[in-house]
Parts: sequence; C-alpha cells; structure tokens
Amino acid sequence: MNSFGKIFRVAIFGESHGESVGIVIDGCPAGLLINENDLLPDLERRKGGKQKGTTPRQEADYPFFKSGIFNGKTTGFPITILFENNNTRSEDYQKQRSIPRPGHADWVAHQKFGGNEDYRGGGHFSARLTTALVAAGAIAKKLLNNISITANITEVGGETDIEKGLQKAIDAKDSVGGIIECIVTNMPVGLGEPYFDSLESVLAQMMFSIPAVKGIEFGSGFKAAKMFGSKHNDAIENMQGKTATNHAGGIVGGISNGNNLVFRIAIKPTSSTPKEQTSLNWDTEQMENFSVKGRHDLCVALRAPVIVEAATALVLVDMMLQQQFIGRIIK
Amino acid sequence: MNSFGKIFRVAIFGESHGESVGIVIDGCPAGLLINENDLLPDLERRKGGKQKGTTPRQEADYPFFKSGIFNGKTTGFPITILFENNNTRSEDYQKQRSIPRPGHADWVAHQKFGGNEDYRGGGHFSARLTTALVAAGAIAKKLLNNISITANITEVGGETDIEKGLQKAIDAKDSVGGIIECIVTNMPVGLGEPYFDSLESVLAQMMFSIPAVKGIEFGSGFKAAKMFGSKHNDAIENMQGKTATNHAGGIVGGISNGNNLVFRIAIKPTSSTPKEQTSLNWDTEQMENFSVKGRHDLCVALRAPVIVEAATALVLVDMMLQQQFIGRIIK
Amino acid sequence: MNSFGKIFRVAIFGESHGESVGIVIDGCPAGLLINENDLLPDLERRKGGKQKGTTPRQEADYPFFKSGIFNGKTTGFPITILFENNNTRSEDYQKQRSIPRPGHADWVAHQKFGGNEDYRGGGHFSARLTTALVAAGAIAKKLLNNISITANITEVGGETDIEKGLQKAIDAKDSVGGIIECIVTNMPVGLGEPYFDSLESVLAQMMFSIPAVKGIEFGSGFKAAKMFGSKHNDAIENMQGKTATNHAGGIVGGISNGNNLVFRIAIKPTSSTPKEQTSLNWDTEQMENFSVKGRHDLCVALRAPVIVEAATALVLVDMMLQQQFIGRIIK
Amino acid sequence: MNSFGKIFRVAIFGESHGESVGIVIDGCPAGLLINENDLLPDLERRKGGKQKGTTPRQEADYPFFKSGIFNGKTTGFPITILFENNNTRSEDYQKQRSIPRPGHADWVAHQKFGGNEDYRGGGHFSARLTTALVAAGAIAKKLLNNISITANITEVGGETDIEKGLQKAIDAKDSVGGIIECIVTNMPVGLGEPYFDSLESVLAQMMFSIPAVKGIEFGSGFKAAKMFGSKHNDAIENMQGKTATNHAGGIVGGISNGNNLVFRIAIKPTSSTPKEQTSLNWDTEQMENFSVKGRHDLCVALRAPVIVEAATALVLVDMMLQQQFIGRIIK
Repeated sequence: MNSFGKIFRVAIFGESHGESVGIVIDGCPAGLLINENDLLPDLERRKGGKQKGTTPRQEADYPFFKSGIFNGKTTGFPITILFENNNTRSEDYQKQRSIPRPGHADWVAHQKFGGNEDYRGGGHFSARLTTALVAAGAIAKKLLNNISITANITEVGGETDIEKGLQKAIDAKDSVGGIIECIVTNMPVGLGEPYFDSLESVLAQMMFSIPAVKGIEFGSGFKAAKMFGSKHNDAIENMQGKTATNHAGGIVGGISNGNNLVFRIAIKPTSSTPKEQTSLNWDTEQMENFSVKGRHDLCVALRAPVIVEAATALVLVDMMLQQQFIGRIIK
Repeated sequence: MNSFGKIFRVAIFGESHGESVGIVIDGCPAGLLINENDLLPDLERRKGGKQKGTTPRQEADYPFFKSGIFNGKTTGFPITILFENNNTRSEDYQKQRSIPRPGHADWVAHQKFGGNEDYRGGGHFSARLTTALVAAGAIAKKLLNNISITANITEVGGETDIEKGLQKAIDAKDSVGGIIECIVTNMPVGLGEPYFDSLESVLAQMMFSIPAVKGIEFGSGFKAAKMFGSKHNDAIENMQGKTATNHAGGIVGGISNGNNLVFRIAIKPTSSTPKEQTSLNWDTEQMENFSVKGRHDLCVALRAPVIVEAATALVLVDMMLQQQFIGRIIK
Repeated sequence: MNSFGKIFRVAIFGESHGESVGIVIDGCPAGLLINENDLLPDLERRKGGKQKGTTPRQEADYPFFKSGIFNGKTTGFPITILFENNNTRSEDYQKQRSIPRPGHADWVAHQKFGGNEDYRGGGHFSARLTTALVAAGAIAKKLLNNISITANITEVGGETDIEKGLQKAIDAKDSVGGIIECIVTNMPVGLGEPYFDSLESVLAQMMFSIPAVKGIEFGSGFKAAKMFGSKHNDAIENMQGKTATNHAGGIVGGISNGNNLVFRIAIKPTSSTPKEQTSLNWDTEQMENFSVKGRHDLCVALRAPVIVEAATALVLVDMMLQQQFIGRIIK
Repeated sequence: MNSFGKIFRVAIFGESHGESVGIVIDGCPAGLLINENDLLPDLERRKGGKQKGTTPRQEADYPFFKSGIFNGKTTGFPITILFENNNTRSEDYQKQRSIPRPGHADWVAHQKFGGNEDYRGGGHFSARLTTALVAAGAIAKKLLNNISITANITEVGGETDIEKGLQKAIDAKDSVGGIIECIVTNMPVGLGEPYFDSLESVLAQMMFSIPAVKGIEFGSGFKAAKMFGSKHNDAIENMQGKTATNHAGGIVGGISNGNNLVFRIAIKPTSSTPKEQTSLNWDTEQMENFSVKGRHDLCVALRAPVIVEAATALVLVDMMLQQQFIGRIIK
C-alpha cells in the first residue's frame, strides 16, 4: 500500500522518470490557510544541486494543487499535489538495464512485478517521490502550531564533522552514509497506543519508507541496551511529567510523555557510488564490471533532514487528529 | 489500535492482573492442523522463572481456544485464544499507586485515559500480553513451512558473554538491557512495498509493539552509516539473487531479496529495577524515594527471542498472504 | 474481515455450536460506567423462546467481560465480551451434513473453506453471533447520550399486522420474512463522507452483516425512484437544518443533516423452514427430499430490532469519534 | 475517507468546478495492457448531452495517466488518472450561494466543513467525480476476464417504459428518479465474508457512494420479506452450485454462490429540478422561492448504468485479489 494514516491519510504516487510524482492528502482539517508558496521553503531544502555532494539533477519542484483547495484554504476534501518531471535523462538507465545495480531495487522490482516495473531512474523507488512527502509534510507542519520539528545531520561517513565526512567520500570517489537526529519540542502527552500503534511503531513505519534508511532508535536507543535500569529510567520531576533525563526519547509504553521526542535514523551510503562495481548481468548470466550512470547524491543523508521532518509531521498530525488534539475545522 | 495486519489480522486484548489476556486471529487460512500442544513449546520458552534473572511469577499459560478451530483444524474464521490470569498479586501495585514508576507507562496511561486505566501490574502495557503474541506467532510459524525464524540474544548489559552481563546486573542489584538478533532463512523474494509498507516498515512497526524495544536496525544498520557505498552494496552473484555479502539484511528498496533477513533490536533495561529510585508522588506533588515492588525480570531481553520470532512470523504470514505466497486453504 | 470501524472498532468471533461467541471492542473511550447488567436488557430482547415464532433454543446469554473493564469503568483498552455456548444439539446437524440446506451458507462455506468450516448450526454464519453484536451495541448506546435509536418490525410475511403475518406462517407450516424500520432521533449534523464512507454506505455495510438482510433503503428509498424531484426534495425550514419533509431519511450527500435518520431493511424468510424441501446430496450427487432439523425461528425479523439498533449504534459511535462529537475520555 | 478497498485500493479526489477530478488506483496487478483508449468507451457512456434528459455540460473527459503505466502496461505501482475541468460556469453557483438547495449537500457541507467547502457545482459532492470512478472501473473490468457486468435502467419515474417515464418529467418540467438493475455472470464462488465484509455489505457500501442512490436490494430483495421460506430458498441442483431459482441474487451467507449476482438500486430524482422551490436563505434567515440554475440531468439514472458497472468491478476485483482468484502479475 502506498498510503499511510487513519484520519489524515496520504497516498503517494509517481515515478522518477514518468509523467509526474504526487500525493493525495485525505482527511486534512478544513479551513487551513495554504498556498503553493507555503510549500516552497521545504521543497527548496530538499533539492539537490545546491551543495557539494548532491545530485546535479535540477527540477523546478513546483507543487501544483489539483484539488482540495478553495479560496486559499483547505476544504476538508482530498488535496492533490502534482509535481511534473521535466529534467529526466532516461537513456542513462536503458543502457545499464541488464545489470541490476547492487543496493538498488532493480532486481527485486523485476522479480516482484514480473518485469513490468518502470526501471528508469529507479521508477517508484526513487527518492524523487520524497518531493511529494515533503509537500504533504509542509501542510502537516502548519497544523502542528507550536510543536516544532527539527532534524539535523549528526554524522556523515562516520564523522561528526560533516564537511570532513563528505570530503572523505569525494577523495575516495565513493558514496557515504550518515545519521539524522530529529527532535520535536512541545509534544502533547498521550500520542500512541501500546500495541501495534505505539508512537515508536508508527514513526518507525514511516521512517523506513524513506529510501536508504536502515535503522532507527529512540532516546538512548541501542545504547540503552548497555545501561543499568537505574541509569536509564527517567525520573518524573513535576506534575507536567517533565523528566530529569530523557533516555526514553519522550516515549514510554509507546506513548508520548510530553518531553522532547528524540530519535535517530541510520542512512546507508548511496547505492549509486561512482566507484566501479561487479554485478550479475541477467542477460549473459555472468558477473561483469560496470559503473552506475545517471546523476546521484554522494550522500543522501545531506538532503534527508527536511524529509524526516515531513515524515514526522505526517505521523504526529494523524495521531493528534485521532486523539482529538487537532479539530476537524481550523478557525 | 490493538490490531495488526491486512489479511492475517491479529487483535490483542487483556491486562496483566485482569481476567485474562488473549488474541483474535482473523484471516488465518482454513485447514491448518493445530491444537493447544502446538503452542506450548513457544509458550514455555517465553515463561519466566526458568532461569536466573527472570520473574518468579508463574502462570500456567495454557492457551484456551475459544473459536475458529474445528476437528483439529483452522476453519478460516477468527481464532480466539484466551489465557487466564491466576497468579496475580495486585496489592503490590495498589500501594505504590501514587508514585508513577520511572520508565513505566504509569504516568502517561494516567494522563491519556483520564485515570481510568487498569494500573495493576502495568495493565494492558504489561509484557504479559506477549503471551498472546507468542501463541499467535506459533500458529503463524506453522504456515511458513520451510521458512525458519531464529532469534537469539547477542548481548546483555553490554556483554556478548550473556552470563557475564547478567551477573553484572545481579551484582549491581540493578536491571540491564540487551540486544536480540533475528535471522530468517529461505525468505521468498518480493515481500514489502516501497512506500509505507516496506518490509522494514512493517517489521519495525511490529517490533516496537514489544515492550522495552527502543531501536531496530536491518543488516549493517547503524554501521552502514559509516561505510562507503562500494563496501555496503551487496553484489548479486546468481540468477536467484544470492548476494556475495548481506549488508542490506535481505531487504533492498523495502522488498525482500531472497537472502537471509537479518535485523537486531535494542531492548532497554527493565524499568522495574530492584534499586531504590527517586520519583514524583502525584498526591503530595513531592519527589520521594521508593522501591518497585512486584515480581520482575532483571533483563527482559532474556525472554524476548521467542516474542521476536512470533512477531516476525505474524508480519511474514500477512505479507505472504497479500502476495499470494500462501493460499487461503491449506491442503 | 470480521472487524468493523476506524476508531471504535469491533472484532467478532465464535460459532453457533463451538466453545463460545464473543467480541472485542477496541477504541472505546475510557471512563464509561459499564457492567454486565447494563447489557442484559438488550440481550434479553434478542433472545428466542419468549414469543411464538422464535427458536426454543435457550442460552443464558450472560456476557462475561474478559478485559478492558476496571472498577466498573472502561479503561480505554480493548473490551472483550465472551458468551458461552451450552445449549447445543450438534447431532441435529451432523446427520444432514451431506445436503447443503437451501438458503443457508452450507454450500458456499464448504467451497470457500475447503471443507474445514464448522458446519454445526451454521458455525460462524449463525445468528447466534448477533448476541455479541447486541452486547457491543449496548455499550455503544451508552456513549450516544440523548441520541435515541428505535427499531421496529413494520411488516411480517407481507402483513403490517404482525400477528396476522406470523399466523400465516404458522398455518402454512412455513417461515416468513419481514421489514424492520429504524429511526434515530437527535442526530448530529455532519456524520459521513461523500465517497465510500457516506453515512448510507457505512450503515448499509453494517446492516448487510446481519444474517438474512437482503435490502436497505433510506428515507423514501425505492419509492423515491418513482417521485418527482420537486416532491422528493426536503425544503430546509430553519437555521438548524430542520426540513419540512424527510424524504431523504436524514442524509443528504452522504452526510447526516440533523433530521431523523430513517431506514428500512428487508429480511428474507428464515432459510430453515419446517417445510420439506428438495436439494442436492453432495455425496450421492442426486437431488433428494429432506427436512431441516434443529431449532429455528419461523421469522428472524421478530428478533432483529435490537440487533439493528445495536448495529446502528456501532456505526454512529465510530463516526462520532472520528468527527470528534464524542471525546476519548468520558467524564 | 475517500478511499476504498483492501488490496486493489482507489482514492478519489477533485471538485466539479475545481482544477480537476481524478483517482489513484493502488494495488493493481502488474502487466495489464492498458491505454487511454481502453477507458474511452465507458467514459463516453457516462457523458451527458448525448440524449434528452441529460445535462448539456460537455467535458472532453479525456483520462490523463499521470503514473503507474509504463510501456503500455501497469507496473504494479499506483496508477493516477486525471481529468481536467474546462467547461465550468461557476458564476451560476455563486449567485445562489445563500440558499442551500433542497436535496443537495449545500447545507450539510457548510456545517461539516465550517464554510470552507468548494460549493461551486456541488464541489466534491458532484456526480462529476463519477468520471474518475468509471475510469478506474474500466481498468478493473479488464482484470475480470470472462466475468461480465451489465447494468440497465429498468424504471424511470415509476415507468418500465423508460421513454414514457422521461417524457413525464419533461412534461411536468420536473426531475425524476429511476431503478438500475445490475447482473454479473460467470461469478466465482466464495467472494465475501459473513461479518462486515459480506459481498452485500461491500457492494452496498460502494453503491451508496454513487450520488443519489437511496436503496439497494439483492435478488428478491424487499419482495423476499413477503415470501415464504419454501418459496424463497433456492434449491441447489448440481455440484457447481447452480440453483433452480435465484431469489438470493447469487449471495448466501454473505458469500457469492456462483450463480448470477443480481441487485437493484434506487436512484432518487435529481435534486436540481427545473421547478421553482421554496427554501431557507441563510443570510436573511427567511424562506424564499428560487430556481436552481446550472446545467443538470432531468434523471441521473440515465447516466448511472456505467457507473454502477464500474463500482461493481472495483468491488469484485478487490475481493478476487484477496481471495487469490486474480494474481498479482498478469501474464
């Protein structure tokens, strides 16, 4: 299913080198002031080509509203946002079609969809679809009022000095991974359900939809596994539930406790490394050397923070509507 | 929502010190041979009191089938499994009611449910409910045929020598966390959808339903963030999709690639440490020292492997039914 | 799927002659005062054996709460209600196993579930499961406050004098059908969504879950098809949306308009007629005469009103939680 | 929710006088040959202006594929189809804004969405959205192979001679309703689940999404309520489940029995009658006379058959994918 959410529900569509990518947002409260310009700052942050290490592919990334907005406000009906694909160079992909790129979805897509997949630029698997996610996230953020979501890169290629990590990749003519940390302040108390829809469950489900994410941890996360309980437990200090420490990352029993929500995600190195690689040619059934063509990021983590923020906003808004922290009409 | 799945759907219920815990399994293929005895080995593995470091609370944990089984086979209709709670000592909890235990859901549950929550033994938040999960998982495992799921503890209290990690906790009179690794062999190719229902997404959603889980990583996981792409990429070696390495943990583009599924989860130290702690008394609105009463595990990771296996089985069966790898009737 | 609802979600289970029937109610607001006695009046109304024309099978129909209730209130966690089956006479069914009863699910169940279905007394298809629905409905009704749901039999065997219609069946030694009309007063404005979850859509989905229902109409219903628009249109008379007439049955554009909700359902004659019938014997592959054994209602419509009320309440509560007309905590 | 389905899932969007209407189809099997031309015949059938009694509004109704199709085949990813709105005359609606049209959604939409709804031409409530439904239905029909769905008008304005019924409306300068009967041949056995997803439940849910539908009945439907059981029961005649009669309309116990699926829907007269009407002006809070402007059908039933067919196809395909009657890849 390419859809997510119970009340505030998004359905994503599109392919990297097809007509378009886009998203339908169903269940958005009516009366929210919104126009295309509100989406542009986050869309700009997501774009490549702005800094070293990101893809030179340039798309206008202009969000066309196709439904659900009237007189500059949401109507309560599905909002459709469409992005046109203009700057595609599909011939790069047709040439290397017979060698499924290691780390990419080429081979699994071919098996799963019986050879009918749109393979150009990764098709539906492309990070190009995160454009649509960011647009929806920008709308979700507007619904969150004083709740603030901030994601930052904390590590690239194993270095906390991000520039250094990136230079390492450039020097090695290789791609690298990174870590993103996301912090949400002014969290309400009570989001999440203990089983299956714990706040960690739903955030994790969403985050693993972002291409290249291979791990997630909340609060102390994997470090918690090495700690004593007396150390890890966050003592409640006041009647608002403020805790002295925040090893839990703002979630206990699957439910937000009003402290800052804190989580980190691990992003693998871009599969499309400039390095020559060896892989199977499924026509010849032989291994052969090849190089990935196309335009790619050296480190996808560089463009990920705004995507992580958008994804977080989508989760929080849906949960807040379920818990009635947000009304169905914005006044 | 306390339910999970699209075709093979489970709904969990119950409280630690209430009448019972149980689960309804809807959408199970008809014709599967099953009886209570088939569930006992996994239920036995989950039990406490068998080894040092686990709770002395002993429950019979006998699974009563209440519906969906006829002539020793599944009928295709909802299967209800009930476990009675007999060995409860609720008075332990009533005494310490006014001090929400750090690391526990006491405080958030109180806020979220307006003081109506069953607080005894953690109520619905208790790991006691994983009994029901394990029972459902045992049925799911039977549907998986030659697919084999094995979870193991790889670390306790930061030590790969598990005994040593546990002794550390006993010596410190404190609780500790741990790491569980789960490996699935003979995986089919094609489980998972890139957006929102990637195999990582759905497994993560499920795993974060298990109490005390605070992190998950697939394949190289957080280590991947430090690697070069040329190193992380798993080259495909043959027409079955076998890869030379398995840094991806058997999932690319959110879809299983037929290699072993590998993931690890981080389990925080048991919140109920024997150590004295300081926390807020919500009657007096003052901080005070207290000790957690009740019977608890020093390290919940010790009993977690069979729960992780069950949870994995539930995810795989649901996805395999969606993808038609498993039929609606077992012959 | 044997489950229904988005926020207030029910999952039904059980078989007519199995261990039990029951229901899990997830998403019920916390803090609702409820005990077994609150359910008994509606359960009593549903029972057979009280009036002529209903089955002599007598069950205690006592609702055992298995989870979700604490200190006489809902906790916000899944409420499980179990009914034991005691008064079963399964041998009646085993004898006639090889002749699928006309009008019953015997043959389709056999095909769909590969012969694994519990055929005794109709198994999961039995109206016995409506006991569980009525129990859940009694809880839903308590959440509706001053909204009142009343279903009545308006026709039996084609007669508006119900006694007369029933006598016709008794005289003919045959079963008969009937019509139920349901009226809901004090409806809120705004329940329902135009596409796929229109109020008519969701009510209809629910009503066709009740065994023997073969038709539903809202307001003027099928008569509307014969009317002129100027006659059918309900003119709005005041700022509360009160209409002069109510041909729409309280729903326009799929959304409740605050006028009385009015719908009727058609109930077919009980399939288990006392009359001798001809049908196929699937062992001999020959047609043969047979009579249905077992204990049955002459007219299932007689016991249906309380079931229709329960079903209506379940729909309204779920929609009112989605639209935030009911809070997540009852104070 | 403006979405429908479990495996084959559609999400509808758009407004009558907005940018566009459209639909996203998720879960369509990969490999289905499809192009815009395949959709045109059904879209043509749905169009107005072709026969007397239908709206003179003319739209090109050309389906633009925006995603999910590659090399003339479905890819297995979401298919987005967009229809542009060109021929809109919104000024008709702005003038009469303060008088909610009787029988229309104007007043409920205004209440439900706090005045933010797009009121032009009924906005999202418009039958214009059925264009998108018909397009999706045309794709679904291609998946059904030899299953054939045929809907016909059987009554207009109370007359089985349709021309006569229509002339009655023209003479009276009023709108009329009608009855549509839908018959599906070559039905598979086993679609539907007894509780909540009975075949009747799901078809009814879908049909009440079509604007103006106020009733549905299966097989003998409301007539069944007047019949004896011995008459209504359909005796099984052979091992394929063929029944002598078909009073059940091809569904017993909520499950298809392989006989023809037969149902009828009641369509109310078009709310936009040419007759002068009286209704409330919400600015003046007074009743006043007014006439509906805009271009409308005298009888929406005239254009409904292809919509009913499309809606039926969407239901059947989704259920057949769940039951594995249709594979995930078309070869």
